[in-house]
Amino acid sequence: MPNTSPFAKPRPWTESAPLLVDVAMGRKPADLVIRNGRWVNVHSGEIIPGTDVAIVAGRFAYCGPNASHAIGQGTKVVDAGGRYLVPGLCDAHMHVESGMVTVTEFCRAVIPHGTTSMFIDPHEIANVLGLPGVRLMHDEALAMPINVHVQMPSCVPSAPGLENAGAALTVEDVAEAMTWENIIGLGEVMNFPGVAANNPVMSGEIAETVKAGKTVGGHYASRDLGLPFHGYVAGGPEDDHEGTRAEDAIARVRQGMKAMLRLGSAWYDVASQIKAVTEQGIDPRSFILCTDDSHSGTLVHEGHMDRVVRHAIQQGLKPVTAIQMATINTAQHFRLERELGSITPGRLADVLIVSDLAELKIDEVYARGVRVARAGKLDIDIPAYPYPADAKKTVKLGKKLKAVDFDIKAPEGANEVRVRVIGVIENQAPTRALEADLAVEDGLVAMDRRNDVCQIALVERHRATGAVTNAFVSGFGYMKDCALASTVAHDSHHMIVVGTNKADMALAANRLGQVGGGVVLFSEGKELALVEMPIAGLMSDERAEIVAAKADRLVQAMRDMGCSLNNAYMQHSLLALVVIPELRISDVGLVDVTTFEKVDLFL
Amino acid sequence: MPNTSPFAKPRPWTESAPLLVDVAMGRKPADLVIRNGRWVNVHSGEIIPGTDVAIVAGRFAYCGPNASHAIGQGTKVVDAGGRYLVPGLCDAHMHVESGMVTVTEFCRAVIPHGTTSMFIDPHEIANVLGLPGVRLMHDEALAMPINVHVQMPSCVPSAPGLENAGAALTVEDVAEAMTWENIIGLGEVMNFPGVAANNPVMSGEIAETVKAGKTVGGHYASRDLGLPFHGYVAGGPEDDHEGTRAEDAIARVRQGMKAMLRLGSAWYDVASQIKAVTEQGIDPRSFILCTDDSHSGTLVHEGHMDRVVRHAIQQGLKPVTAIQMATINTAQHFRLERELGSITPGRLADVLIVSDLAELKIDEVYARGVRVARAGKLDIDIPAYPYPADAKKTVKLGKKLKAVDFDIKAPEGANEVRVRVIGVIENQAPTRALEADLAVEDGLVAMDRRNDVCQIALVERHRATGAVTNAFVSGFGYMKDCALASTVAHDSHHMIVVGTNKADMALAANRLGQVGGGVVLFSEGKELALVEMPIAGLMSDERAEIVAAKADRLVQAMRDMGCSLNNAYMQHSLLALVVIPELRISDVGLVDVTTFEKVDLFL
Repeated sequence: MPNTSPFAKPRPWTESAPLLVDVAMGRKPADLVIRNGRWVNVHSGEIIPGTDVAIVAGRFAYCGPNASHAIGQGTKVVDAGGRYLVPGLCDAHMHVESGMVTVTEFCRAVIPHGTTSMFIDPHEIANVLGLPGVRLMHDEALAMPINVHVQMPSCVPSAPGLENAGAALTVEDVAEAMTWENIIGLGEVMNFPGVAANNPVMSGEIAETVKAGKTVGGHYASRDLGLPFHGYVAGGPEDDHEGTRAEDAIARVRQGMKAMLRLGSAWYDVASQIKAVTEQGIDPRSFILCTDDSHSGTLVHEGHMDRVVRHAIQQGLKPVTAIQMATINTAQHFRLERELGSITPGRLADVLIVSDLAELKIDEVYARGVRVARAGKLDIDIPAYPYPADAKKTVKLGKKLKAVDFDIKAPEGANEVRVRVIGVIENQAPTRALEADLAVEDGLVAMDRRNDVCQIALVERHRATGAVTNAFVSGFGYMKDCALASTVAHDSHHMIVVGTNKADMALAANRLGQVGGGVVLFSEGKELALVEMPIAGLMSDERAEIVAAKADRLVQAMRDMGCSLNNAYMQHSLLALVVIPELRISDVGLVDVTTFEKVDLFL
Repeated sequence: MPNTSPFAKPRPWTESAPLLVDVAMGRKPADLVIRNGRWVNVHSGEIIPGTDVAIVAGRFAYCGPNASHAIGQGTKVVDAGGRYLVPGLCDAHMHVESGMVTVTEFCRAVIPHGTTSMFIDPHEIANVLGLPGVRLMHDEALAMPINVHVQMPSCVPSAPGLENAGAALTVEDVAEAMTWENIIGLGEVMNFPGVAANNPVMSGEIAETVKAGKTVGGHYASRDLGLPFHGYVAGGPEDDHEGTRAEDAIARVRQGMKAMLRLGSAWYDVASQIKAVTEQGIDPRSFILCTDDSHSGTLVHEGHMDRVVRHAIQQGLKPVTAIQMATINTAQHFRLERELGSITPGRLADVLIVSDLAELKIDEVYARGVRVARAGKLDIDIPAYPYPADAKKTVKLGKKLKAVDFDIKAPEGANEVRVRVIGVIENQAPTRALEADLAVEDGLVAMDRRNDVCQIALVERHRATGAVTNAFVSGFGYMKDCALASTVAHDSHHMIVVGTNKADMALAANRLGQVGGGVVLFSEGKELALVEMPIAGLMSDERAEIVAAKADRLVQAMRDMGCSLNNAYMQHSLLALVVIPELRISDVGLVDVTTFEKVDLFL
């Protein structure tokens, strides 16, 4: 894919150095001078009033008390009028796919919120399209007007043997990706038991990353801070965003890892962990802020890294300390301290003009020396990135599904059966392994709507096998005839259909086959809500606002069906995540994620 | 030169990772376990009692409350008994040659003081032997039992056109050196006017270093914090150790540089600059401690980085903050955070057992998991490194010098002449451009011992031209017939002879030709003191204690001759440093270092 971007990436510092020096010395004019700002200096920890910055070739050339010597005929001059100059914000770990939009649309949504650097892990598309999918997002990222660096996904599939994803990534794939221009490191190494067990794929991927001089992302999703934690650390991951308690953050920092504190749409891990700094006096230099997962609605209604920094300040951090955690700390961690994360000579000219520091009220956003947003609105056009047709044809059902495909046959002669049921837990990612006694009607196991037991199906969609794995789920509270289908189905992203009614299940599944994926709700044969996500069945190619509005309609329609869970759609999309206990479904069958074994539906 | 070292460098973390993980998990025994220490944690800023560390393959495998699971039959167990575990200390910028000893002898001297990592800039040998000289010290460094990283000298000669050094280094040489295993970056870029003027050699060397992903050392030796400083920063140097005032340190940190604070034998730049942290609250993360230049006497009698850290604590830094400045801050700066600078899994097992933290009383030193010193004494043997014969034949006088070679002929028919005189200033590096009226006797200009005007000669020694440049110097206070000669003659390292008596000058010069360089004092035909430095005429191949004792005798003998300057020998050796004002001597002639022009002896 040729780079079709209208945004030229600034040349390296050393190539522009003669020009930067000339501007700093007053021998040549700057492109842009911002005058009279309060310099939020993340190196010294100071706020320095009366600061001018001169920018040329997309980089800071001079930062100091008076840049009048850098102003020439062609220089644009902006008066900050005593407002704060804050380095552009960095999101240290996140999945664009969680926003249901493309990288381009994600950028359009977050730039007005002051995000100028993102470290994205395209783990979801990798599960559908493999290395070529990573490459697509890598190339799209390169075309952006802000810095979008890509972490190579490390665990695809997440649970080998327990699921078949659309693709599998190997150590050789990681080595290959490390040669790409825009790969910044290895994405969250989620297979933490594998690291502690010296799984050769895990140690091989880590070794290739380190050999390339890049950063190994971690993901230790366990409360056990004993030997398995120490084994994981010794294996090489350099950060972790899975901590939830202050003691988790402290343990990671003590071991030389960076504690990444997460405030996503459904992650609230900053307030508890930041007490390590505010109450226990741990050195803040090893703390980094990130979002991990933001829904389009969060981006549109609440913000992005500005929301995280604001929240961190509200927890009692000094503003400059909170800003360090979203700027220089992040840059240092990814070996980019000389490239971004501070307002200092040579670095990319990513700077926010902020009128209230504690509230982080962002008036203007400059990326690489260009004003990209003001007053909360995007100030440039970012053309849609042309995804190839193949990337939009990933929902391969192999046949038109019918209601009978969701039949669950009872054992010969049974009148009632005892079955395993996946139990959704409000506000938590783990599920419960429940059991239920269900009636048998005409040889088929019946749902029990009174007790909130309905059907769940995992529909194979990568290889057109036509296979459907059927089981039961409880906790959504659907009171009416309906079915919800989604091709966002972490992590292997087949299709999950949950329904109280098999005819609606078939309709919903077929509808996603028709539009190339997304999420759809049917009731009594009628489509109540649809969010199309044709790119890999994971992302829309529409604007974030439109996607957010459609997603809002979906949420409302699910409520109308009787589902009152918070984040009900996320709960739905995680039911195939066969790495988090206790009971999940995959294309292989029902999986007990406490023993990591396939189990039978019937007890 | 083959690596003849008996010390195997530990394999990279990723290669040892499976073993580290096994030890962390208790599946395999550690080589060494240190129990019950107070963990000085430079990441979190804490001191954590009751800590065990398990070490295998030269690296930390486990750091935590209880390493009993890592103890097997072959495991050596050390009881720290509640003493502190401090990461091995790093010297961030230094010249081994200043100690007048080899890298090996320098290491022997500093290891008992807790230094386990040094970043050495072999600038002096480069001026004598060029790139092959750098390679020699690079290879010797690799053979050490501690981490000795080499900065590629950037400015050889220091003042092109104003001196002819033994060699010149080019941009291509820098590019070549960046491919060597043990080159960590570019050494202090001293030509700061050149950087601000976009000198292509300077920008070329910086670009090659950055391209190699390595660190660009700075050296901005000016009190001017205006445009020339900003121009220098925009050119790319990443640190600076030439600041002397708190405002110097703050200016550097604000611009995104690291402020390196220096306590050498004759540099006292910590106390003033550390006030930036202790009084002005600047974030300490951008501060790094170093020595720059330590004489063998300082190493033997006072210490090395332990002395610097102790001093920093005495200025009011918290011990853990001072230790950060000599460990993790340094490691981060040189992109080695994952390799050294903290006691955390995966890093080289460089650790000190310390019984008093504020006093930094070091009981035992471990480097790469091996005890290398205890109770102030080296605990291992480090064999002398075999320097090739060529490196010891660098004093090429071209002829036997006679007293007449130091004759200064007066202009035809003059009875008295007015001459320029280099004026030494006590305790300062700059000189004064003095003038004196001197008598003419038998057509030769006479010295004026009553007014402390004696002769100085720059004897060419790299190309055996036999050339002698004669001039006058004042300030040493020699009262007797004597002459001091030295082949340490910064930065081009010809031979400087200062005498009140031409016969002694010839004797001293010839003696150094005979022993291959060093420093020697003659009086009335008798040799009073000699420190042989046969390696490049810069370094002894004897033990540091012996060199220190000989240097002490030299200082005493100079005092006996009437010289009462502090650091008199250093003043002598700096008189050819044609980059520091005001008046200097070189093989080209007298140089006015305010205008950077050659000037005539006679006014």
